[in-house]
Amino acid sequence: MTSILITGISGFVGGHFTQFLLKNKSAFDIHGVSRSEPAWNFIQDKESVLHSISFHQCDLLNSAKIHAIIQEIQPEYILHLASFSSVAQSWRSPLTSFLNNTNAFHNIVEAVRLQGFKTRILSIGSSEEYGIVLPGDLPLTEKKPILHENPYAVARVSEEYLAHVYAKGYKLDICCTRSFNHIGPGQSDQFVVSSMARQFAEMVVQRKKPLIKIGNGSIVRDLVDIDDVILAYDAILSKGNAGEVYNVCSGKGSSILDIVEGLSRLTGIPVKVKQDPDLIRPVDNPVLIGSYMKLHNDIGWKPAIPLEKSLEKIYGYWLNKL
Amino acid sequence: MTSILITGISGFVGGHFTQFLLKNKSAFDIHGVSRSEPAWNFIQDKESVLHSISFHQCDLLNSAKIHAIIQEIQPEYILHLASFSSVAQSWRSPLTSFLNNTNAFHNIVEAVRLQGFKTRILSIGSSEEYGIVLPGDLPLTEKKPILHENPYAVARVSEEYLAHVYAKGYKLDICCTRSFNHIGPGQSDQFVVSSMARQFAEMVVQRKKPLIKIGNGSIVRDLVDIDDVILAYDAILSKGNAGEVYNVCSGKGSSILDIVEGLSRLTGIPVKVKQDPDLIRPVDNPVLIGSYMKLHNDIGWKPAIPLEKSLEKIYGYWLNKL
Repeated sequence: MTSILITGISGFVGGHFTQFLLKNKSAFDIHGVSRSEPAWNFIQDKESVLHSISFHQCDLLNSAKIHAIIQEIQPEYILHLASFSSVAQSWRSPLTSFLNNTNAFHNIVEAVRLQGFKTRILSIGSSEEYGIVLPGDLPLTEKKPILHENPYAVARVSEEYLAHVYAKGYKLDICCTRSFNHIGPGQSDQFVVSSMARQFAEMVVQRKKPLIKIGNGSIVRDLVDIDDVILAYDAILSKGNAGEVYNVCSGKGSSILDIVEGLSRLTGIPVKVKQDPDLIRPVDNPVLIGSYMKLHNDIGWKPAIPLEKSLEKIYGYWLNKL
Repeated sequence: MTSILITGISGFVGGHFTQFLLKNKSAFDIHGVSRSEPAWNFIQDKESVLHSISFHQCDLLNSAKIHAIIQEIQPEYILHLASFSSVAQSWRSPLTSFLNNTNAFHNIVEAVRLQGFKTRILSIGSSEEYGIVLPGDLPLTEKKPILHENPYAVARVSEEYLAHVYAKGYKLDICCTRSFNHIGPGQSDQFVVSSMARQFAEMVVQRKKPLIKIGNGSIVRDLVDIDDVILAYDAILSKGNAGEVYNVCSGKGSSILDIVEGLSRLTGIPVKVKQDPDLIRPVDNPVLIGSYMKLHNDIGWKPAIPLEKSLEKIYGYWLNKL
């Protein structure tokens, strides 16, 4: 058996990745850590999935406990998904963001270093690390200098720098991603696409008014489907080059208004859009679109699922849930 | 009275800065925090200095306690000197380095942010943030992109990025330095110049063999005298531009062998130099020389004390102490 430790297993990506492993990689002995046991309301056969893994309840800020868990498992792979990944939340609570992103990661790599394990670690970073970008920078490649325009981005950049020094100075086998916004069924509605799909489903199920509240509608993001993300992480874990950073993205840009229109087309509901000043962030990136060419050239991955298909899955999830 | 909070007051720079304030700025109500009460064996009238300040025993990783101290003092200035500033030590204990540099700073700025104080904060960074530099980059200006070649540098870069986001996003009144190696009487002998001056003093006082152990002798550093550093920090606290980063340096480079020769000339002792592999770091910067032109142009500061004078003071300190 090959042992893998998935941090943040209770989350959106953790649940999808666990399902993927169970379906496609029977040789894997799956261990997961999280603060709380998985809710995974987007997984049909949740109980059977839970019985197929070993779950370790752990706050990653408890360095002694994560050290002991890694000592017990001696994982060949660590997929570090645990994070506080909301930019808006990081503005409200920058210290919590930093601790639960940077320090949580640091505790993991330090435990691996101190125990001398040859674990391959995948550190998940964020497109927010690119900071404010100019039109000429697009699509963003990994060569673009990274920046720090919000507390979440600072936390992620710091994590990536730690990964770099552990890989280069201590020869740990770490790969990093800069993952662009991913979307899919089961994602919390604190993320914009999930929130909007939920609002459309509420219009149908709960007969709510056809009104959508948004922040800045012209904001453009690169939205990559969760099933594409899972394949990218699996490919980097097995074939990525140690010490390297890879964009995980769709290569396409969609504005907030594009998403509203996509959902409106899908559901056949014409909606009114209202700007809510509370949803506007103090500092924000107007456009983020990534290039996945490095990941494609090094490992062969490319995204396969179009936005329309993703919106359909997410809307279907909310219809089913409400 | 103008209140100032000095973190790491028990340290080398803290002691010198406190003496400077007591001598030159009678209007200051001086508060200091540190894990342990100042030893300050380099201060002659230590007891009288201690009686002139308010000392608060505090581990800066205790965020609730530092919050309460700042609430009590409501400082107009914070000089954040507390740090674990040894690169060699950061390789041995990267987690301790990160916590006591980055997280300690984060707790301070978060306490100021949450309480809405208009405190001017000076965050002390390091020339190590410039990473490996090429001859064409010298002397280093603040425009050179910063890097992360060792755990201490990562901690300092992360601190500077946090300072940036707190200054830009939350409008906190923070200035940053990238301070080059400073030297002076009272500095711990885990730093190279102090260690060497001590070894020369031991040859005289304890009749030790004229043998000096060094790591890589060709390493070049920009060494700035503690009295120049104090004047720079005072100038930035009173006249620095919020959100800016300033090099604090001598503008000159000295190799490890230059220091050995300087001390040999000063003491009249010819020494044998031996390379000790234990003193060589896994990754190191061959040359660091800074430009102080930004600080000079913006505020008028420039260094005044030549290396020979510094070595004389440091050697004198060790002679007196042994």
